[in-house]
Amino acid sequence: MIVLGIDPGTANTGYGVVASRRGRTVALDGGVIETAAGLPLERRLAAIHARVCELIAEHAPAALAIEDLYFGANARSAMAVGQARGVVLLAAGQHDLPCSSYTPQQIKNAVCGNGRAEKLQVQQMVQRLLALTELPRPDHAADALAVAICHTNRAPLAAALVTA
Amino acid sequence: MIVLGIDPGTANTGYGVVASRRGRTVALDGGVIETAAGLPLERRLAAIHARVCELIAEHAPAALAIEDLYFGANARSAMAVGQARGVVLLAAGQHDLPCSSYTPQQIKNAVCGNGRAEKLQVQQMVQRLLALTELPRPDHAADALAVAICHTNRAPLAAALVTA
Repeated sequence: MIVLGIDPGTANTGYGVVASRRGRTVALDGGVIETAAGLPLERRLAAIHARVCELIAEHAPAALAIEDLYFGANARSAMAVGQARGVVLLAAGQHDLPCSSYTPQQIKNAVCGNGRAEKLQVQQMVQRLLALTELPRPDHAADALAVAICHTNRAPLAAALVTA
Repeated sequence: MIVLGIDPGTANTGYGVVASRRGRTVALDGGVIETAAGLPLERRLAAIHARVCELIAEHAPAALAIEDLYFGANARSAMAVGQARGVVLLAAGQHDLPCSSYTPQQIKNAVCGNGRAEKLQVQQMVQRLLALTELPRPDHAADALAVAICHTNRAPLAAALVTA
């Protein structure tokens, strides 16, 4: 199963594509969609939407996993994250891709076994789980790979529960 | 000038289309895009995006005016409003439509001359300014007409300032 993970933001939206094959999880792609601060918001959102559509066409993922709001976000930043989430979820909806949302705590728990793990710990576990030669960079790409791993590890369990 | 006004929300996105002709402002269209609570979020956002694209194609507005976050919104509802705003702004960006955002206080001020006007007062002023035979209904459509009027009344002043 191929999963597209997204860490949404107007300026930087991280993405990570992972595939699970015979019990092993590998990274197929990862990076950041950057948009210029000087551009009108509607142009920045259009750039994020267009790139996510490209990633879906390129990798044909079976699911999209997206990071939820972090605890303690204020209303203004929550609205900004929401705007980026909106166009990412739209791209998924337009391609019949089921979406799952995970809080930062759920992601850390799935990757490190500790919902309060530090950023570096998460990156080190992502490196280990995907057998990468280096720490995943930049941060937003690492976070996107982490949410994709989180969904990959939870999906079989969720499926088992549904059919049980 | 034709302006498309939007009051964004996942369950109910109000829209209102107004045209200013020889100093008079008239309503061309107004209503609510409703999405079913049982649908996955990505489907609801896709429905909102598709309908806004239709409205743009139908009315060829020169600008989109959208309601900003209300004061006192919590992070969770701000994210939900942001998601709906994101797909509306995206539709505008994909059609080269310039976007302006107004707080509820700015809208009430522009329509009633009082940033703390009650909902009924706003509806009565919208009815009067657009010479409607009845109060505009439902609430979200009235709010969308109000933000469109707000932009219509402010745009000439803003243009004057820019070219001064």
